[in-house]
Amino acid sequence: MHSRPRDDDPRLGDLSEGEILRAILNRTARGAHTVIGPGDDAAVIAAPSGSVVATTDTLVHGPDFRMAWSSGFDLGWKSAAVNLADIAAMGARPTALLVALAVPRDLRLSFVESLADGFREACAALAPGCAVVGGDLTVSDVLTVAVTALGDLEGRQAVTRSGARVGDVVAVAGELGHAALGLSVLFGRFRDGDTPVPIDRAALGAGERAALDAQLRPSPPIGLGPFAAIAGATAMMDISDGLALDARRLAAASEVTIALDGGALGENVERALGGGEDHALLATFPPGIPPAGFRAIGEVVARGEDALLVDGAPVEASGWDPYRDWDSASG
Amino acid sequence: MHSRPRDDDPRLGDLSEGEILRAILNRTARGAHTVIGPGDDAAVIAAPSGSVVATTDTLVHGPDFRMAWSSGFDLGWKSAAVNLADIAAMGARPTALLVALAVPRDLRLSFVESLADGFREACAALAPGCAVVGGDLTVSDVLTVAVTALGDLEGRQAVTRSGARVGDVVAVAGELGHAALGLSVLFGRFRDGDTPVPIDRAALGAGERAALDAQLRPSPPIGLGPFAAIAGATAMMDISDGLALDARRLAAASEVTIALDGGALGENVERALGGGEDHALLATFPPGIPPAGFRAIGEVVARGEDALLVDGAPVEASGWDPYRDWDSASG
Repeated sequence: MHSRPRDDDPRLGDLSEGEILRAILNRTARGAHTVIGPGDDAAVIAAPSGSVVATTDTLVHGPDFRMAWSSGFDLGWKSAAVNLADIAAMGARPTALLVALAVPRDLRLSFVESLADGFREACAALAPGCAVVGGDLTVSDVLTVAVTALGDLEGRQAVTRSGARVGDVVAVAGELGHAALGLSVLFGRFRDGDTPVPIDRAALGAGERAALDAQLRPSPPIGLGPFAAIAGATAMMDISDGLALDARRLAAASEVTIALDGGALGENVERALGGGEDHALLATFPPGIPPAGFRAIGEVVARGEDALLVDGAPVEASGWDPYRDWDSASG
Repeated sequence: MHSRPRDDDPRLGDLSEGEILRAILNRTARGAHTVIGPGDDAAVIAAPSGSVVATTDTLVHGPDFRMAWSSGFDLGWKSAAVNLADIAAMGARPTALLVALAVPRDLRLSFVESLADGFREACAALAPGCAVVGGDLTVSDVLTVAVTALGDLEGRQAVTRSGARVGDVVAVAGELGHAALGLSVLFGRFRDGDTPVPIDRAALGAGERAALDAQLRPSPPIGLGPFAAIAGATAMMDISDGLALDARRLAAASEVTIALDGGALGENVERALGGGEDHALLATFPPGIPPAGFRAIGEVVARGEDALLVDGAPVEASGWDPYRDWDSASG
């Protein structure tokens, strides 16, 4: 069909949409819930509960990732993980992903193939049975990955942010502040002026490498979402913008105050409170010891002047607001 | 909260994410199928059939629309319509939209408000009961609208592309080639060199205005999708890339040849065959008169050397492939 020369790793602009889609689909697993997969006008996914949980989250080159720092695999993995976490935070089991890719014409095919691998492996590792069931491919000067995740409640009620009750224990599953530490490693160690430069992992200690992985390839505890729901979680959300900001949101939705125990937040309390992108699960449970996988970090108290207290005192709001914090000109 | 001056129509970069989301949500209707709407980690939508139909399609500034030509309302409407059409083409009823917006910081709030209006009104007009249930807002230099649509099969089997049988009648509902005519009006009449300039509708005849509407604010026959399924459609798809290309796809999936009657394709057969973006529904039905809303345009015959015939003769492949056809440098 195509008379142009083909090198081993062509640019996307030299391929047809069909060629690129075939390369992606060759690397896409079939999900356990997939009734009709990619290739038709739309996919069909089992929703045995009679409802479907749905969320969408986008990663844009610049504010959300840099190609100097993230491989295609990293980007696919992270794009999957952050969306799976939102499904898990409702107490649902992820069933399917849809991926809308907007790609520059000079991007290499191998990058997109690795991206597809990242999606597949993140599903296999974090949410077995879930798979990419559909997508869209378009051209853009800015590499953009918009993902929609679907999930099933398996007959349970959704666990919203608004169900926390006074006396509940506040608990968390997953890391706090590790992804933020990873970001600070990237910004502090792998820039030339404002320009990101490739990561030299050999130059890093084990802690820094782990933090980097938490930033570039996060592993939120997806299975603990449905587990928490079964265990009676009264409210739940994933921590995407930092514990302080997200705990405030949960407190506001539930019309309570969340009183955290600073001693339960690890060595660097400020980073645990302010650091986003770990996608840990924040949940409240009836009084007592939280279920396995969760650790108690505080208590729900009656709504006071402040929605969030740490060791009894109010804390400054902090967290990540892309509209305020990102400036494309300064890297 | 904010000490900066506020003019009547602030730029998004001067607002917080929360402020922008509130403005959007104020303009978002509640859907008939919405169990939990925007504001939590994920939405919950009724899926009474025990399955959910899902599709995603993205509009990127440059290849897919130009702000000089499309208002926010137009963009919201079209982004909804093209996704609703994919749901309808499976024979499903659209139930929900999720909208991932990536917006430049200098975009005006009023544009995003109009976009939300466009989504709401397109749902009201084309798919009553369907509504935006969730979304995501991020920063990008390239305005990008990635939409996921969900639908319910109401107990029916999905109508795929692969079910056409020899002897079936080939039928279409909706326009053919109007959106392409609209695009040619835009490119021919409203550019200064390669730069899009605002549309002067007064300079256009009624036919050109209608074609422009078909391009900027398409109204695919969404309700006829489920109707066709009930009437026994054996295969169906929406025509996004032109009748010739999409009929070939349906023929290939069904392992048949589609033999079209050129006389049934209107005055401009070439445009009807090649013009994309109308999102008409192409369907096959058991022999006989197709159901109301559909017009017969041909017949399914045994798979021959060519997947598509018009008046008995093969036709050149044509249609829109964004990877080949779009060059950002040339407008």
